[in-house]
Amino acid sequence: MKPSPRRPPALPLQLDLGPSPGGCGLAGHASLHGRVREALRDAILSGRLPPGERLPSSRTLAEDLGCARGTILLAIEQLVAEGYLTTRPGSGTRVVDTLPDDLLVPRGVAGRTGPSPAAPVLSRRGASLAAARGEAAPLSDAFALGRPALDAFPRETWARLLQAEWRAGPPASLHPLGEPRLRSALAAYLSAGRGVACSEEAVIVTSSIRQSLRLLAELLLEPGEAAYLEEPGFPGLAHALGAAGLRTVPVPCDAAGFSIARAQSLDPGARLAVVTPAQGHPLGATMSLENRLALLAWAEAREGWIVEDDYDGEYRYAGRPLAPLHALDRAGRVLYVGSVSKVLLPALQMSYLVLPQTLVEPVRRALTGSGGFASILGQGALARFIAEGHFAAHLRRTRRLYGERQAALVASARDLLGGVLAVPPRDGGMHLVARPVAGAKFDDRRAVEACARAGIATTALSPHFADPARAEQGLLLGYASVPERAIVPVVRRMAEALRADR
Amino acid sequence: MKPSPRRPPALPLQLDLGPSPGGCGLAGHASLHGRVREALRDAILSGRLPPGERLPSSRTLAEDLGCARGTILLAIEQLVAEGYLTTRPGSGTRVVDTLPDDLLVPRGVAGRTGPSPAAPVLSRRGASLAAARGEAAPLSDAFALGRPALDAFPRETWARLLQAEWRAGPPASLHPLGEPRLRSALAAYLSAGRGVACSEEAVIVTSSIRQSLRLLAELLLEPGEAAYLEEPGFPGLAHALGAAGLRTVPVPCDAAGFSIARAQSLDPGARLAVVTPAQGHPLGATMSLENRLALLAWAEAREGWIVEDDYDGEYRYAGRPLAPLHALDRAGRVLYVGSVSKVLLPALQMSYLVLPQTLVEPVRRALTGSGGFASILGQGALARFIAEGHFAAHLRRTRRLYGERQAALVASARDLLGGVLAVPPRDGGMHLVARPVAGAKFDDRRAVEACARAGIATTALSPHFADPARAEQGLLLGYASVPERAIVPVVRRMAEALRADR
Repeated sequence: MKPSPRRPPALPLQLDLGPSPGGCGLAGHASLHGRVREALRDAILSGRLPPGERLPSSRTLAEDLGCARGTILLAIEQLVAEGYLTTRPGSGTRVVDTLPDDLLVPRGVAGRTGPSPAAPVLSRRGASLAAARGEAAPLSDAFALGRPALDAFPRETWARLLQAEWRAGPPASLHPLGEPRLRSALAAYLSAGRGVACSEEAVIVTSSIRQSLRLLAELLLEPGEAAYLEEPGFPGLAHALGAAGLRTVPVPCDAAGFSIARAQSLDPGARLAVVTPAQGHPLGATMSLENRLALLAWAEAREGWIVEDDYDGEYRYAGRPLAPLHALDRAGRVLYVGSVSKVLLPALQMSYLVLPQTLVEPVRRALTGSGGFASILGQGALARFIAEGHFAAHLRRTRRLYGERQAALVASARDLLGGVLAVPPRDGGMHLVARPVAGAKFDDRRAVEACARAGIATTALSPHFADPARAEQGLLLGYASVPERAIVPVVRRMAEALRADR
Repeated sequence: MKPSPRRPPALPLQLDLGPSPGGCGLAGHASLHGRVREALRDAILSGRLPPGERLPSSRTLAEDLGCARGTILLAIEQLVAEGYLTTRPGSGTRVVDTLPDDLLVPRGVAGRTGPSPAAPVLSRRGASLAAARGEAAPLSDAFALGRPALDAFPRETWARLLQAEWRAGPPASLHPLGEPRLRSALAAYLSAGRGVACSEEAVIVTSSIRQSLRLLAELLLEPGEAAYLEEPGFPGLAHALGAAGLRTVPVPCDAAGFSIARAQSLDPGARLAVVTPAQGHPLGATMSLENRLALLAWAEAREGWIVEDDYDGEYRYAGRPLAPLHALDRAGRVLYVGSVSKVLLPALQMSYLVLPQTLVEPVRRALTGSGGFASILGQGALARFIAEGHFAAHLRRTRRLYGERQAALVASARDLLGGVLAVPPRDGGMHLVARPVAGAKFDDRRAVEACARAGIATTALSPHFADPARAEQGLLLGYASVPERAIVPVVRRMAEALRADR
């Protein structure tokens, strides 16, 4: 590589063939003809080769640059194709006439320095879409929320099924509603395991509950319409509804869960309610039968919609799983959403919707149009995973495992956090709620920061309340992903972090 | 299974334990206690077991139903948990008092018949979202658009890489912007192979070009703002912008591609232009250098944005691939989008964005908030596929293959369709444009239907024009997925179908 010569304004043309600065710019153009092309283009854009100028012959250029004439011809051919150069028989190769003057000022070489940063002027809605909170904790972190046991994931089985599926041949169709075998396997699982009687035609595979929620909100409601949400509740649901342009009405919930009467007293106009009847998130209230029936009656009379997010519905350690609202719905107003990712592995990014049959075709069209349907890549393998019984076995195994992990957390919290936090057991779910004991000074956001400095990913309870005046203090501790043997050391570190912070 | 008894309104309670009607309803509750629970719930909801009524003893029920007492107790326990029954020491098990009367009318058994269909009352925007066109053709069909060669997909290699990735362990983090190794591999490929100089931080993995486009439109523009689109152009882009609430301004393009001057004369207010400079879709025009520079100058002056959809940019059979707009962008106004799916396999559902660095963090937050990021499931395998050279080899192989397939199509169209359609070769892309020969009566939508009846998935050209007055007649023939030996028979069938239709 010869050293970069200074660039004289006149011919004989001297071209800078490198070395390229850093990892960008010409790094890719390792081929010599690519570098010749770039150098000629730079010369044109910087004005050293002005519009209309005739290029030296390819033979001359080849000699000057010490490369084969074929290399020069390749580069020229491409610049002609790109419109920088023009070739006419008899008049040789010239720079085109039509380069606008103002772009020819030599102020750096286009493409080489890379684009300078433009200020990111987001739209108002863009700013709101980008208001989501920061990076999520790694999936293995204690006590991050919504993390299943990675150590219980049967990765050999999964890898084998994936390979088997793909060796059998790439999917011959895209399936905006989901791979038919997976829809069928999910319908069987939901009917047998969750009390959601449905046929495979009613089941739609999506990539996440949030995506499902936004899609349904957009299909069924106009921007500006209101939707009821549980207070406290998962902030991600409000974000998804906000992304769909809806106004959210947080409805304070008690131990009997969401009450439609209370919701209507706050805002009678909504046509959508998003609820977690099995175990209210994050506090775990089970919606009473009375509240369930009243909500269904409202939806039928109002021609409204109920999104039933069967959050954590799979995990009950005392009693049996509760029957979902969907099982009581006679009018087809319940849109049931659930997630495989949360039960099996977040990286699967597979959730599902169970819809009244009349909504399936509109959803299919909307998903086809937006290109936003779930990845088909692992759907065949997941269908086999369910159909061959691995999914049911995984649920049985993790129910026992999570019960043990919960018990270990309750015990070590009692021993090590007793002066500050009370951590009662729950009969379901994948997290516990730690509440400050009477008289203890406690700020949950500050506690989260203190724990984070100790490498522990807790979640503050108070931001789950849309109304700060109603906010309760507490920490949510996801225990499902934390091996039992790790629980005592992590709780000890947590106790130290909280003590040091006071 | 004993035959279904009639249901007397009074006790002794007779319960209907099946058989279940069809594949829905109780089909899932194969367990006996599940069926007992459903039957008791039916009795409560239908009023046969009225509010406050005391249940027969578990022993009596077990005898009546001929099952174990434990089965009855399981069913009762669950109904208590669900709030249908209440148990007090000394007073036995009773139906709760609080069932609203209007839900107790016996009009069919809830949960058994399944939800009756509600009319799908879509919102206005929902109707527009659901206006996408019908089912796409299977991926192997001749001559469907945008289909790569499935027979050239190295499925053994891919299956092996997938399995290796997953055996190494499930992904320990979700990556809303994409698996870092894949972002790095794509940056290297784009720099070396496409002239898009970028670092891995600027590359974002998405699930589809449409999804990318909608996301960018929402982040950068308000609902109701205008965006320029090429006319003719891919209708899916207009759909994606429409889903983001934008108004689209179709700009008629000539052989020099999109002209910003012409666009501004139609509507001066837009701040976004979506263009396919390499090969305009569907007609293949290459945007001239003059048009490119003028567009960049507009974006810089207007603080507008250019989405460069590098459609089919990988496939050039004559000359070399053209350098993208991105390489000329000095102001960071070009948002580059491309797709792996179209080149490798639609089922991968992986596309990418190359953004100015300042937009990356807002995009990350919006993707995190919406849960709409691309599936991580195959990203590690794809990173290895690219890094190990399989991707480059696939591109080389398919470039040759598609060149051969195109030549075969041109030849057999000349032989077999010559009287009706002219099918000239193109120097790039994955489809050809068949135009009616002078004097031939031809309606492209009708021709598509005639071909479809013969099992051939052609695409009409005229719907690619937003303005029917400008629409040109023609058929788009995707040849990339059609093995060379199949081309003559398919074209012959097509010729017969078109002849029969006249």
